[in-house]
Amino acid sequence: MAKKEKDFVKEITPMEEDFSRWYTDVIMKNELVDYSPVKGFMVIRPYGYALWEKIQSYADEKFKETGHKNMYFPLLIPESLLTKEKEHVEGFAPEVAWVTHGGSQELGERLCVRPTSETIICHMYKKWLNSYRDLPYLYNQWCSVVRWEKSTRPFLRTSEFLWQEGHTLHETYEESQEETLKMLNIYKEVAEDLMAMPVVVGQKSEKEKFAGAFATYTMEALMHDGQALQAGTSHNLGQHFTKAFEIKYQGRTGKEEFPFHTSWGISTRLIGGLIMVHSDNRGLVLPPKIAPTQVVIIPIAQKKEGVLEKSNEIFDKIKARGIRVELDDDLGNSTGWKFNQYEMKGYPIRIELGPRDIENNQAVVVRRDKLEKEIISLDNIDETLSEMLDTMQSDLFEKAKAHREAHTYVVTDYEQYKKDLPTKPGFAKMMWCGCRECEDKLKEETGATIRCIPFEQEDLGDKCHICGKEAKHMIYVAKAY
Amino acid sequence: MAKKEKDFVKEITPMEEDFSRWYTDVIMKNELVDYSPVKGFMVIRPYGYALWEKIQSYADEKFKETGHKNMYFPLLIPESLLTKEKEHVEGFAPEVAWVTHGGSQELGERLCVRPTSETIICHMYKKWLNSYRDLPYLYNQWCSVVRWEKSTRPFLRTSEFLWQEGHTLHETYEESQEETLKMLNIYKEVAEDLMAMPVVVGQKSEKEKFAGAFATYTMEALMHDGQALQAGTSHNLGQHFTKAFEIKYQGRTGKEEFPFHTSWGISTRLIGGLIMVHSDNRGLVLPPKIAPTQVVIIPIAQKKEGVLEKSNEIFDKIKARGIRVELDDDLGNSTGWKFNQYEMKGYPIRIELGPRDIENNQAVVVRRDKLEKEIISLDNIDETLSEMLDTMQSDLFEKAKAHREAHTYVVTDYEQYKKDLPTKPGFAKMMWCGCRECEDKLKEETGATIRCIPFEQEDLGDKCHICGKEAKHMIYVAKAY
Repeated sequence: MAKKEKDFVKEITPMEEDFSRWYTDVIMKNELVDYSPVKGFMVIRPYGYALWEKIQSYADEKFKETGHKNMYFPLLIPESLLTKEKEHVEGFAPEVAWVTHGGSQELGERLCVRPTSETIICHMYKKWLNSYRDLPYLYNQWCSVVRWEKSTRPFLRTSEFLWQEGHTLHETYEESQEETLKMLNIYKEVAEDLMAMPVVVGQKSEKEKFAGAFATYTMEALMHDGQALQAGTSHNLGQHFTKAFEIKYQGRTGKEEFPFHTSWGISTRLIGGLIMVHSDNRGLVLPPKIAPTQVVIIPIAQKKEGVLEKSNEIFDKIKARGIRVELDDDLGNSTGWKFNQYEMKGYPIRIELGPRDIENNQAVVVRRDKLEKEIISLDNIDETLSEMLDTMQSDLFEKAKAHREAHTYVVTDYEQYKKDLPTKPGFAKMMWCGCRECEDKLKEETGATIRCIPFEQEDLGDKCHICGKEAKHMIYVAKAY
Repeated sequence: MAKKEKDFVKEITPMEEDFSRWYTDVIMKNELVDYSPVKGFMVIRPYGYALWEKIQSYADEKFKETGHKNMYFPLLIPESLLTKEKEHVEGFAPEVAWVTHGGSQELGERLCVRPTSETIICHMYKKWLNSYRDLPYLYNQWCSVVRWEKSTRPFLRTSEFLWQEGHTLHETYEESQEETLKMLNIYKEVAEDLMAMPVVVGQKSEKEKFAGAFATYTMEALMHDGQALQAGTSHNLGQHFTKAFEIKYQGRTGKEEFPFHTSWGISTRLIGGLIMVHSDNRGLVLPPKIAPTQVVIIPIAQKKEGVLEKSNEIFDKIKARGIRVELDDDLGNSTGWKFNQYEMKGYPIRIELGPRDIENNQAVVVRRDKLEKEIISLDNIDETLSEMLDTMQSDLFEKAKAHREAHTYVVTDYEQYKKDLPTKPGFAKMMWCGCRECEDKLKEETGATIRCIPFEQEDLGDKCHICGKEAKHMIYVAKAY
C-alpha cells in the first residue's frame, strides 16, 4: 500500500518542476477534460462538467435575482451581420469557423459559428424594441462559442468553450454603466464567494478592451505561478452597436433614440483559474462551495460488525444537513488507494471511521488543504462538519489572498522591474501615463501586459514609470494566460 | 375597454378556422420565439425559454436520480467519424451543416456541426473504456444540434434545436434494454406529470427507427387537430456503433467484449406539443407545474386605501408557500387589458382583489382553463390556491386524455379508414402484418404513418388490416408533425 501510494503521487508532475505539466496532469488524472479529435476542441468530462454546473447555477441565480431572463439565439450568424460593426469584425473575423454548405447545397452566404452573439442579438433587438416602456432589456444566454485558436490549453484557451453572455439595453448611459458594474460585481462574487479566488477589479486599457466596446471592465486573478488570469469581463458597449444596427426606440419626449448597451461573460476558463489558485502536487483542492462532493466517508475494517451500519447512519445524518456526501464502501480498493484518490480529486473533507473510533464515539477527519488528522465527536458531527466546511472555504480564500499579496510588487524603477520580473513573477503595481506607446513598450520588453486600471487607485508617484511623463493611472501589470 | 378586449382576442386566428395559423399566432403573440435572419433557425425568447428551463430542470433531476452525469462534447465532428456507422451517415449526411474554413484557412477535413453526437461520443468512449468495472457509462449532454431542414415550423421542426442526448454503455443486452425503457419512462413522466400531456408509448417500426439503432422506442402525443407528435425517443443501439467504433473492454472472463449502447433524447419540440395539447383561441393554457408564473394578482381600483397593501400581503403569503406568483400593479394598463394579457400568456390562475372583496375577506379567482369567476376566502388563500393548482394540473391531463380517447378509432376496415381519415383525424388502432410494403402503402394512400407498436397490445383480430395476411402487431397510426 505504501508503494502504491508513492507511485500514485508520482503521476502528477510537481508544480515546482514544470508548472504547465503539473496543470495538465491535474486535469488529465482527474478526468476533467480530454482532447477531442478536432484540434483545439476539448471534451468536458463529468467531473469537470460538475464544476461548471456549480458555477452555472450560482451565477444564474444571481442573474435572475437582478431581473435577468434567459433566452437562446441561433448558433449561426450570417457574414453580413458580423461585418456591421467595424471594430467588432476586425477583432473576430480572423478566428471564426465558417459554414459554407447545408446538406449537399452550397449556401448563398457564408454563416459563421458564433464567436459571441452581439451581432445577431442586435439584429433581433432592432426588430423588437419600440418604446422606452420596453426598456431595460435584461437578457442572458448560456451556450458555447467557437474561436479558432492556434495554440490551446484545457479550460484556459480552447477553440470552443462554454459560457454565458448577457446582453442588455438601457435608456441612459448612467443605467448602462450601473449595469456593467453590477454584473462585474456578480462575477466577483462568483470568483470570491463561490470559488474562494480573490480578484482585482478594474478597467481594461483601450488596447485590451473588447472589439467594439466603449469600455471593458475585468476581474483578474493571480495564479500559483505568478501569472494573471482574466477571469470575467463586463463591457459597456455604449451606442456603438445600437447605432450600427439601427436599434431605435421612441423616447420619453417622443423623439427617436438609440439605447445604451452592455454585454458581459464568464466561461469554463474559470475552472482553469480554480485549479491554478488552489490545487497542489497531490492534485485538486476544491473549495467546499464549488466541490461536487464535499465529504467522503471511508469505513476502516468495514467487515467488522457495526462499521458499515454506523457509516450509513452518519452518511444519512450529514446528508440530511444538506452536505454533499459520499460513502465509499467498495471492497475492491484499499483504504490507502481511496485516501489518495479523494485527495487527488480534491474532496474537501474525508472521514475515516473504524471499529475503535466507533467505540470511542469519534471519527478521524482530514481537511484536504491541511492533510492533518483531527479527531471529532460523532455527536453533532453534521454540525461540526458544516462549520469545518465554512472555515475551509474562508481559509482557502485567505490563503489565496496572502499568496497574491506576497506576489504583488510595487514598482519604483522600471529598469529594476525588467530585471526582477523573471525571478519575481506576480502583479506589479505601477504608474502609467495612459499612452499606447508605453503600453506597447512594456509588452515588448517584458512580455507583461496591463491587466487593468484598478478601481482602487493608489498613489505611487506622479510620473509614468515607463516614460517618466505625467502619470494618469495606477495599473496592475503581469504576464497573463 | 370592451373594444380593446375584442381587438385583442381577434389577433389570434381561431383554431377551427386555420389550425396552423392559430399555432403560429399563439407563439408569436406570446413572444415565445421569433424567426432569425438564417432561414429555419429560430430565436427562443425569454417566455419560451422559461418553459424549456422547466423541462430541463425536471428532466435533469430525474436523470441524476437514476445515476446519470452530464458532460459536454465538441460541437464539430470530423467527416470521417460521421461516416463510420453506415446507416447513421446515410440518415444524417443529407441534413448536416459543414464547416470548411477556420479563420482564413481552409480545413484539411470538413467538420459537421453535430446533428446528434453518437459518433464523437463513441470515438471518446473507445479511448476511455477499459474494463467491465468501468461500466455502466451513464452520461448525458444538454446542447443544441443542427439539422438542415427544408420546411420548418417553430419548435416542431427547426434547423437548430435545443435538446439533451443521453449516451450509455452496458455490459449486457438486458441492461441496455432496461436502460432504454427506463429513460422512455422518465420521458413519459416529463410529458404526463410535468406537462399534463398524455402519451402512448411503444416501439417504432424498422422503417421509422433511428439511423443506426437496433430498436427505437417512442412516446406519441395527440394534438388538438388530431395529428400525432413524436415527443421523445429512446434507442437501444445494440452493438452497431460499439463495433463500428471498436469500443472494447475486458470482460469478467478476461475476454474482450463490445458493450451494449443506448441513446435517448427530448427537445424543445416538446413545447410545440404543450401548446397544441392545452391551448385555446384566447392563447396559451399552461399546466401549473410547467407555468413560469402560476398565479397573478390583479388589484382592482388599486388607488383605494388598503388595496395595494392587502395585495402585497397576499402576494407574500402565496410566495412563502412556494407558489410562483406575480403582482401586476402597473397603472399604465387597464384591468381589462391585464385580464386578456394573462389569459393569452396562459397563467393558470388570476386573482382579482378590489375594495369590496377585501371588506368581505374574499377574492375572485379565475382558472385559465375554465374562465369562470369563483369566490374564495382570504383565510388560507395560499392553501386554497395550492389545491386549485393541483386540481387544474390533473384536470388538464384528464381533459387531454379524453380528447385523445374521443379521437382514437378502432379500424375494422382499411377502405373505410381511408374514407374516414380526412374528416376523422386522430389515432387509428389497427392490426399489421409487420411488412414494409403495407407500411409504405399506408403512407402513400393516407399520408398517415405507423406511430408505434404500443407496449399495451390489444387484440383487434388476427389479420393485417392492410393486406389481409396474418397480423403480428397492433399499431397506432396517424398523420404526424
